[in-house]
Amino acid sequence: MLLDALLSDDAAGAAAADAWALIEALYPLCRSLTGDGVRQTLDCIGARIPLVRTEVPSGTPACDWEIPREWNIRDAWIADLGPGGDGHRVVDFRAHNLHVMGYSVPVRRTMTLDELQPHLHSLPDHPDWIPYRTSYYREQWGFCLRHRDRERLGPGPYEVVIDADLAPGHLSYAESVIPGESDDEVLVYTHTCHPSLANDNLSGIAVAVELARALHQAPTKPRLTWRFIFGPGTIGSLAWLSRNEERLGRVRAGLVLGLLGDPGVLHYKHSRRGDTLTDRAAAHVLRGTDAHAPAKLLDFEPYGYDERQFCSPGFDLAVGRLTRSPNSTYAEYHTSADDLSLIRPAQLAAALQTLARLASVLDANRTPLNLSPKGEPRLGKRGLYGSVGGGAPGAFEHALLWVLNQADGSRDLLAIAERARLPFEQVEQAASALERAGLLRTVEPAVPEDLDSRKKGPLP
Amino acid sequence: MLLDALLSDDAAGAAAADAWALIEALYPLCRSLTGDGVRQTLDCIGARIPLVRTEVPSGTPACDWEIPREWNIRDAWIADLGPGGDGHRVVDFRAHNLHVMGYSVPVRRTMTLDELQPHLHSLPDHPDWIPYRTSYYREQWGFCLRHRDRERLGPGPYEVVIDADLAPGHLSYAESVIPGESDDEVLVYTHTCHPSLANDNLSGIAVAVELARALHQAPTKPRLTWRFIFGPGTIGSLAWLSRNEERLGRVRAGLVLGLLGDPGVLHYKHSRRGDTLTDRAAAHVLRGTDAHAPAKLLDFEPYGYDERQFCSPGFDLAVGRLTRSPNSTYAEYHTSADDLSLIRPAQLAAALQTLARLASVLDANRTPLNLSPKGEPRLGKRGLYGSVGGGAPGAFEHALLWVLNQADGSRDLLAIAERARLPFEQVEQAASALERAGLLRTVEPAVPEDLDSRKKGPLP
Amino acid sequence: MLLDALLSDDAAGAAAADAWALIEALYPLCRSLTGDGVRQTLDCIGARIPLVRTEVPSGTPACDWEIPREWNIRDAWIADLGPGGDGHRVVDFRAHNLHVMGYSVPVRRTMTLDELQPHLHSLPDHPDWIPYRTSYYREQWGFCLRHRDRERLGPGPYEVVIDADLAPGHLSYAESVIPGESDDEVLVYTHTCHPSLANDNLSGIAVAVELARALHQAPTKPRLTWRFIFGPGTIGSLAWLSRNEERLGRVRAGLVLGLLGDPGVLHYKHSRRGDTLTDRAAAHVLRGTDAHAPAKLLDFEPYGYDERQFCSPGFDLAVGRLTRSPNSTYAEYHTSADDLSLIRPAQLAAALQTLARLASVLDANRTPLNLSPKGEPRLGKRGLYGSVGGGAPGAFEHALLWVLNQADGSRDLLAIAERARLPFEQVEQAASALERAGLLRTVEPAVPEDLDSRKKGPLP
Repeated sequence: MLLDALLSDDAAGAAAADAWALIEALYPLCRSLTGDGVRQTLDCIGARIPLVRTEVPSGTPACDWEIPREWNIRDAWIADLGPGGDGHRVVDFRAHNLHVMGYSVPVRRTMTLDELQPHLHSLPDHPDWIPYRTSYYREQWGFCLRHRDRERLGPGPYEVVIDADLAPGHLSYAESVIPGESDDEVLVYTHTCHPSLANDNLSGIAVAVELARALHQAPTKPRLTWRFIFGPGTIGSLAWLSRNEERLGRVRAGLVLGLLGDPGVLHYKHSRRGDTLTDRAAAHVLRGTDAHAPAKLLDFEPYGYDERQFCSPGFDLAVGRLTRSPNSTYAEYHTSADDLSLIRPAQLAAALQTLARLASVLDANRTPLNLSPKGEPRLGKRGLYGSVGGGAPGAFEHALLWVLNQADGSRDLLAIAERARLPFEQVEQAASALERAGLLRTVEPAVPEDLDSRKKGPLP
Repeated sequence: MLLDALLSDDAAGAAAADAWALIEALYPLCRSLTGDGVRQTLDCIGARIPLVRTEVPSGTPACDWEIPREWNIRDAWIADLGPGGDGHRVVDFRAHNLHVMGYSVPVRRTMTLDELQPHLHSLPDHPDWIPYRTSYYREQWGFCLRHRDRERLGPGPYEVVIDADLAPGHLSYAESVIPGESDDEVLVYTHTCHPSLANDNLSGIAVAVELARALHQAPTKPRLTWRFIFGPGTIGSLAWLSRNEERLGRVRAGLVLGLLGDPGVLHYKHSRRGDTLTDRAAAHVLRGTDAHAPAKLLDFEPYGYDERQFCSPGFDLAVGRLTRSPNSTYAEYHTSADDLSLIRPAQLAAALQTLARLASVLDANRTPLNLSPKGEPRLGKRGLYGSVGGGAPGAFEHALLWVLNQADGSRDLLAIAERARLPFEQVEQAASALERAGLLRTVEPAVPEDLDSRKKGPLP
Repeated sequence: MLLDALLSDDAAGAAAADAWALIEALYPLCRSLTGDGVRQTLDCIGARIPLVRTEVPSGTPACDWEIPREWNIRDAWIADLGPGGDGHRVVDFRAHNLHVMGYSVPVRRTMTLDELQPHLHSLPDHPDWIPYRTSYYREQWGFCLRHRDRERLGPGPYEVVIDADLAPGHLSYAESVIPGESDDEVLVYTHTCHPSLANDNLSGIAVAVELARALHQAPTKPRLTWRFIFGPGTIGSLAWLSRNEERLGRVRAGLVLGLLGDPGVLHYKHSRRGDTLTDRAAAHVLRGTDAHAPAKLLDFEPYGYDERQFCSPGFDLAVGRLTRSPNSTYAEYHTSADDLSLIRPAQLAAALQTLARLASVLDANRTPLNLSPKGEPRLGKRGLYGSVGGGAPGAFEHALLWVLNQADGSRDLLAIAERARLPFEQVEQAASALERAGLLRTVEPAVPEDLDSRKKGPLP
């Protein structure tokens, strides 16, 4: 099928090596919802796959929200002016960009430790890690530091500087589209707003890039149009959704990707409806993953990443989420310990293999109609069946019989594979053979609707 | 919520003490389908809560039945006229009103033991207990006695007297109504026809009285109108149903109460449809009862108390039943051993607490609609969400997200609580906050229909 | 009910003895898709039950297929002309009719062993058994032999003769119809095309004959019309289906019977839809079979016997399959070891008992409507209920209450029995009593539709 090439261990390993190189390049950049760090990130991605970039002006409405001002930071520090402090930087943005709370307003002041304390964030339970904190929508400023360092702070005074701009500008996102035979689309969204955090979400960005590259380079045109979106969390998906409402009716499936490099097993989180095409395909594919580290299926919940927006009731798209360890479930989450040592090339490679199979299933799925539905058609005279009777049929004949029997126009190949308890690929192969023999055709629309989507009305 | 006041152990204990006092007052009275014993019972209830009484004349049709003649008994005995018998009463109605089969026709005769035997009822397996027997709809008479006493009877002759009237009169029932914001109703029915039996059903009567009293005294008007009915079993509910057919379309939920004082755990029996509002609310609330004595859910079956009538196919109301030990499942059932020693104040109190929570859920439940359904609305600017990002949301924020995500007008708060695996109260609190913030409104009708009621046609 | 007479061990044993006699008579005949062996088989059946025979000319279309030429074989052998071979028959059709591949074209040649080998079939894993092979739809010829004998063959040359005709003629099938009160039908199909194989399918033929005979001799007319079809596998059912399309809308239930004499437990295979009347009745009846050898339910799959055709998507009939060991699951399947020693009269008898109960349930099932649906009707005044109250109702009263409560026209007796967890027979008895009392009538159509058939459109 479409991405069979990526399924081999060698191919997935090579792609994971490329992903790793991208992660290393992106790690030092200071990303946020907006700003030049994001633009540099998109530059790196654009060097690998075709990318169309969009800059949305601050103040533009996006659903219930509006695009915030653009944030750019040059430097920031807390310098000890106290006795023996020597003006030494006790917290230094140049050492780690997590030290500054994202979207901090500019500040330049001299303060005592007591005055400073309300602006400090640290993790008593993990005294060597710097936490990641932001304040996108309320004007404030803050520093994040190791708790161990915080406890060493003297009474001050301190020079406190955040040399940043928070001013009208733009929000940047980018899309990479692989046109298919159909205008119907699969969405892949990954968030680009986190600064130096490796698993969350350089792993997601890099895996998405490799998947998109494989689709761009696939020997055949995909059946569906694939759209990869690289944008900031929440406000990025809201911006894209509000600018693309007319397109949403064509979204057949979708995935939010993130957190794909850590040692945990894969977790697929269902879409809001719970039985969309994406959900059914993911359940089918993930059942076949590594028996020693079997993937897990999670029910939908309205907390997480951008699936929150895609699955809000007014959109209710067939968008699920694939991660390894889910957000908030591991200690290093949203701390400086989410660095390159947390992620592993082999985990990126295995995620890519699973995604390649999932993408292939989503793309090859279709709803077949048996053109000779009364009784079984004669397969023997069409060269599809052994000529000596009396023995049991083989696996391929079995798949042929299942497809013919179930192809009444009410089920797609995925549903047939599930009922027959056969791998999708075997059912798809049988369907292709029957199509060539003139016994089967795909019903319109060529691309299977989400089977339960008939229950849905139009977008409000 | 509505009856939060009754949830504390102190409040429930005080209410249970009042219930106990009522039970003690009612225990000696000889009740039956009709008669002055019922009227005295309703007098006692009416001294505690507002009560509107109805007297239905004998002969009035009630569905397939008709109101029977009224039965009143003054005295009854079997006196031994045999050698050494001395005219001594060997069975005496004045000692226990269970001694006479309910609705026995008057008799005054002298008979041998052999002639008397077909009229005697006793329990060989429980020789010290008097059974409870009735013959409402066939003219006969009988005595119930301890098997141990029956075995001691000499050959007679005996003087056999039942000094009773069975004559045209009335059937008495009474209602206590707490008007709500809506005309939609919750029914609570409890049977008043059993003579000196404590669990069945003075416990049900007394608990219903305390629940009604709490609703009458609640600081806020309930959303729904609550209707408590005190009437005899079977013919009482049939009489009420046949006189109130035009009202039945408004019944949103309902409970038959009985057998609430014995040591058994609570049992909720589903309504005929099995997924009505009452069923869903009871399942939700009972899941949260005492972990050491968890409540049990029973499937519907057409045997039991007045739910048989409410759940007959021509009415098919959303009426379930709450008891402790179900009828027929304990040895003392329908015998003189169902006396005050079988029931316990603590069991009455715990039943009241569960009922208070269940009533509060039924009353607060509603179907919310998210007024900002495209993407998540900005909770932060409305003061509903913390302003520093990066950490996980708390329980209240979680509930806010669930309500917003699910509030598409197809689910009530109870369904949202079930899907979110959150307590109803937490979901209701979140919904109220969102309503105050203008992000949510309740869809019409304000009171949630039983979710599956759309499948139902009108009453035939 | 209808076939209660066959439920006793004595009656079933006698019927099984008759079945055994028929099997012994039919075993030596050489059957195939067509030909005189089939006609002789139908002669034997016709001597036991009324039979209407159909002869379909070769070349007649049957769905996607056409009726093949008729095959008749007189003799066949491989004679050893080699040194010391003496012209001795090393393979001889007169010894076992499995020796010739079914539908072999005529041949008369002298060949070496090397030339002969591609035409030989044997079973290395079972060297003493002759395999059963056919080539209905491709012109070829072959011999089947014990692998032990094959290994002893010298280099030849051999005289190879198949004295057969493959020429325009007819396909023969036969029907036995028991007219019912209704034109609605139950189909029973059993395949007649296998040569000397006892379990597959003389067991099925003989059990079908005994079931048909019991229905023909039943003291009352069945409610449904029962149609037994004896025809070859695949092409026989296709021929019948293509000639009876206008009749298919009347098919309420159906069974393919086969493989009923081996030592295995009974297996019911669901119809394609999985919840048809046949499926529900079989699940109910098979749950009650021998606790020491409980029957098993199998999901539908499109491999097996003639249910493949009845359950093709263009017909999609309510036809399941009853066998003991399913095809292909035991070693002797389709070999000469499937002889009389594989099957047992007691297994035939037990299969007949189960079928008698299943047939009775299918025939007695109907959809009742409570004519007094508001409240419970007074059963006591109609003589259906004990007159002294206070005790629990008995099993019959329980069944009465269940039927009355559920009889809203949306459920048949089988569904009521399942919900009430009562045996169908008890529910049917209660329904009959309520019908006699004027409290219940059967809704039109008198014969229950498959409950989910409303979802189905007309045949395409």
